Amino acid sequence: MNESLRELRERLAEIHDLRSAGGLLGWDQQTMMPERAAPLRAEALGTLGRLAHERFTDDAIGSLLSSLEGEEERLRAADPESDDAALIRVTRIDWEKSRRVPDELVAEMVRAGAHGHQAWVEARERSDFAHFLPYLARNVELRQRYVACFEGFDDPYDVLLDDYEPGMKTAEVAALFAELRGELVPLIAAVAEHADRVDNAILHGDFAPARQREVVQRVLSKLGWRADGWRLDEAAHPFAASFGPTDVRLTTRYEPDYVGMSLYGSIHEFGHGLYESQIAPELARTPLGEGVSLAVHESQSRLWENIVGRGRPFTRYLHGQLAEVFPERFGAVAPEDFYRAVNRVAPSLIRVEADEATYALHIILRFELEQAMIAGTLDLADLPEAWNARMKEYLGVDVPDDAHGVLQDVHWAGGDIGYFSTYALGNLIGAQLWERARADLPDLDAALEQGDGTQLREWLGTNLHRHGRKFTPRETVERITGAPIAVAPFVRYLRGKLTPLYGLD
Amino acid sequence: MNESLRELRERLAEIHDLRSAGGLLGWDQQTMMPERAAPLRAEALGTLGRLAHERFTDDAIGSLLSSLEGEEERLRAADPESDDAALIRVTRIDWEKSRRVPDELVAEMVRAGAHGHQAWVEARERSDFAHFLPYLARNVELRQRYVACFEGFDDPYDVLLDDYEPGMKTAEVAALFAELRGELVPLIAAVAEHADRVDNAILHGDFAPARQREVVQRVLSKLGWRADGWRLDEAAHPFAASFGPTDVRLTTRYEPDYVGMSLYGSIHEFGHGLYESQIAPELARTPLGEGVSLAVHESQSRLWENIVGRGRPFTRYLHGQLAEVFPERFGAVAPEDFYRAVNRVAPSLIRVEADEATYALHIILRFELEQAMIAGTLDLADLPEAWNARMKEYLGVDVPDDAHGVLQDVHWAGGDIGYFSTYALGNLIGAQLWERARADLPDLDAALEQGDGTQLREWLGTNLHRHGRKFTPRETVERITGAPIAVAPFVRYLRGKLTPLYGLD
Repeated sequence: MNESLRELRERLAEIHDLRSAGGLLGWDQQTMMPERAAPLRAEALGTLGRLAHERFTDDAIGSLLSSLEGEEERLRAADPESDDAALIRVTRIDWEKSRRVPDELVAEMVRAGAHGHQAWVEARERSDFAHFLPYLARNVELRQRYVACFEGFDDPYDVLLDDYEPGMKTAEVAALFAELRGELVPLIAAVAEHADRVDNAILHGDFAPARQREVVQRVLSKLGWRADGWRLDEAAHPFAASFGPTDVRLTTRYEPDYVGMSLYGSIHEFGHGLYESQIAPELARTPLGEGVSLAVHESQSRLWENIVGRGRPFTRYLHGQLAEVFPERFGAVAPEDFYRAVNRVAPSLIRVEADEATYALHIILRFELEQAMIAGTLDLADLPEAWNARMKEYLGVDVPDDAHGVLQDVHWAGGDIGYFSTYALGNLIGAQLWERARADLPDLDAALEQGDGTQLREWLGTNLHRHGRKFTPRETVERITGAPIAVAPFVRYLRGKLTPLYGLD
Repeated sequence: MNESLRELRERLAEIHDLRSAGGLLGWDQQTMMPERAAPLRAEALGTLGRLAHERFTDDAIGSLLSSLEGEEERLRAADPESDDAALIRVTRIDWEKSRRVPDELVAEMVRAGAHGHQAWVEARERSDFAHFLPYLARNVELRQRYVACFEGFDDPYDVLLDDYEPGMKTAEVAALFAELRGELVPLIAAVAEHADRVDNAILHGDFAPARQREVVQRVLSKLGWRADGWRLDEAAHPFAASFGPTDVRLTTRYEPDYVGMSLYGSIHEFGHGLYESQIAPELARTPLGEGVSLAVHESQSRLWENIVGRGRPFTRYLHGQLAEVFPERFGAVAPEDFYRAVNRVAPSLIRVEADEATYALHIILRFELEQAMIAGTLDLADLPEAWNARMKEYLGVDVPDDAHGVLQDVHWAGGDIGYFSTYALGNLIGAQLWERARADLPDLDAALEQGDGTQLREWLGTNLHRHGRKFTPRETVERITGAPIAVAPFVRYLRGKLTPLYGLD
């Protein structure tokens, strides 16, 4: 191997290990750590993050990248899909971005985010937006300074978006979301008129957590969870983490009075975990060894949670499992009624509790407000009013107070501006992948009716997962679906489900 | 604060964070990690260890220490117990030691230890010492090279001992152990003659792990375990870990047919954890913020496990808890019979299963053999024979095969030579501390009879734990007990217990 490439790989592996250790400390913090340890854990996380950043932005990485320019071309000429050429390309992009931002600004953003988070916790508790406002203003100002470190963008918001969805442009998202909003607002209004046709009362009741765990374990095992490479733990705010393809950790929450949370929450996190678990082992400890973007990652969680998990075939299997473990509740429920219950659509206040149809409108609202915040065209003091007006316009919902409105999400408090759109883009990509997978896998429905995720899992592994970050997000999606991100498949999917369910025209 | 001192502290805190992260990865590996993750975890641990080592042996630390020589004197003149002066002293000792050993030798020792461990696992399984011999020879040779990096010692073995028990000399340990052996061999022979007077059959039977866990949780909570700062998990080879005083993690093992393992094992680990949890918070993230030596650490685990946990007052409390949780087994057992059962003494083959009286003879045997290995006066091929001869001489035990003899311990396989003696020194120190504590705490027995560890916990916190590594191990022991490590208190303690128990003269 080329000596510069060998050295680059060695340095990147070390940086990976530092980040991975930080990831494990973060996982532990949310699942295992005794609460008194929080201040020392914050120090340790700070040190690991700082060292990884220092080592990655080092001049030496830049010199290696420069000396590898010819090698990259040679590698790609020999093999257009060369792992090593992709490694050099991705590392160069990451390195050049990281070098543009002064360390002090990074540190200041981290600090402001920590303070903002604390202020947000207090503000949400008291539903007091004014308390949060100066911290939000500080976060926005720092993001504007961050944007100013870059050049050559069409829209300042592009810079922020690129951190979560590399290569994506604000204008593209805006166009997709305008189309999507145009489809969803009337669809959801029509559903709301027939709200009484579907209810989900059977999902509420008395569900012992130990028995929920039993159901979740059964379901995940059929989908592809492996005891020797995965864990499932509890966390207040469920998430998936991974430390290489051989160490995937899901978390979930067991609500004693609602079985939907642990069931669909863990299938969602399974989608994230499966992606990481099927990345080619040879990409481990390199920047290629992770999901290609947040939207593509979210396409995986939503594909498994919603399209598979709430689809008619798989709900038959789920219903059977629930009837075995909770016979007193599900023994006498028809599979079709279970299918209807888990597909209930209803406009609501809180994003994280929204169904798959209304969800995107929560996102579009945030995306529009974020752009205005960064552009400086919205006075931040007017944010609650703007929020509430859009909730009414898009979802027909009246917001009673800011705790249930503009203060509901953690993202802006910590300074994460530009993140939200990836959730809804994930819905779109998921539907596109699903159309392709169904075309390729004629027996898919029959397998899912048995709860068996093997076919889809392997299809996703071969076509998507194994590549990690080797291709751009755009290339990644287009290689599989033959098209850029589009609205139509998702709308087709939703209409196909909701029209019969709600007896729409 | 002096600018050099501030910078030194900052660097040491960073190094602490790296080591602490490595510690958490190690804890996770033994308690939580999916097995397939082992190879990637080894890489991450290697990186963290290497970075911590690089940063600690850095020239910059040496320059800071040089520039702080005058400051150290000033600080100590102003306050003989100055934390900062102690920090400079301890850091200088650690740094000078670490600088003497070339990085390549350190790396080679780690590698040889890993290979040795693997070979040992195979050799023990097959009871095949010949398979292990070349790996052991390599470990010994590397330790001899390690010793050669130092100068000014009385005995080559001093260098190895110093890594585990700073400041301790081989000659001192040899003198203590000769005296101890002279006391123990006839005492244990006398006990063996009356072996039938005590049996521990009541500790064996059918003990559901969940109920064992209930007992352990009750007991530890009374002793001082705190839910907001401690954890208790399961591990195949139980240990205690801590990441600062606010994050203490014990592990234990629940044997379904023997209640003694989880009960006394977790009290043992509690002793280790308590030490770390009571170190002064202001020493956190410095080299002073940990136990002062392995022997002093072991004095804590053995004090709680044996002297408290097997003492008559506390066994009354333990018996009560067991009778509540396992009424079918302990309901009809008299407290005195439980006390007798947990204090059974019997010569046996395996160190980790040995009782508190025979234990030290297992250690003395190893200490003597280690010295001969390092001095080169024992042909390693003759090690099994030498082992077996000593087992017969000291304990009257015939060794059936090497798996139950020379191959039983993990230490030499990984290259840990010089470690063993600290276990038995811990027994001696524990008895010395106990004599002092009883003199200071007239109500101690009454408290322990209620299971209440508060008095002893606070006494240990004030007199020992809070100081961390601020004083040398020798100073630490002498400040409390007024004497150097000695044999007499331990022998007094043992005779006081065993003479009536076994009806000796």
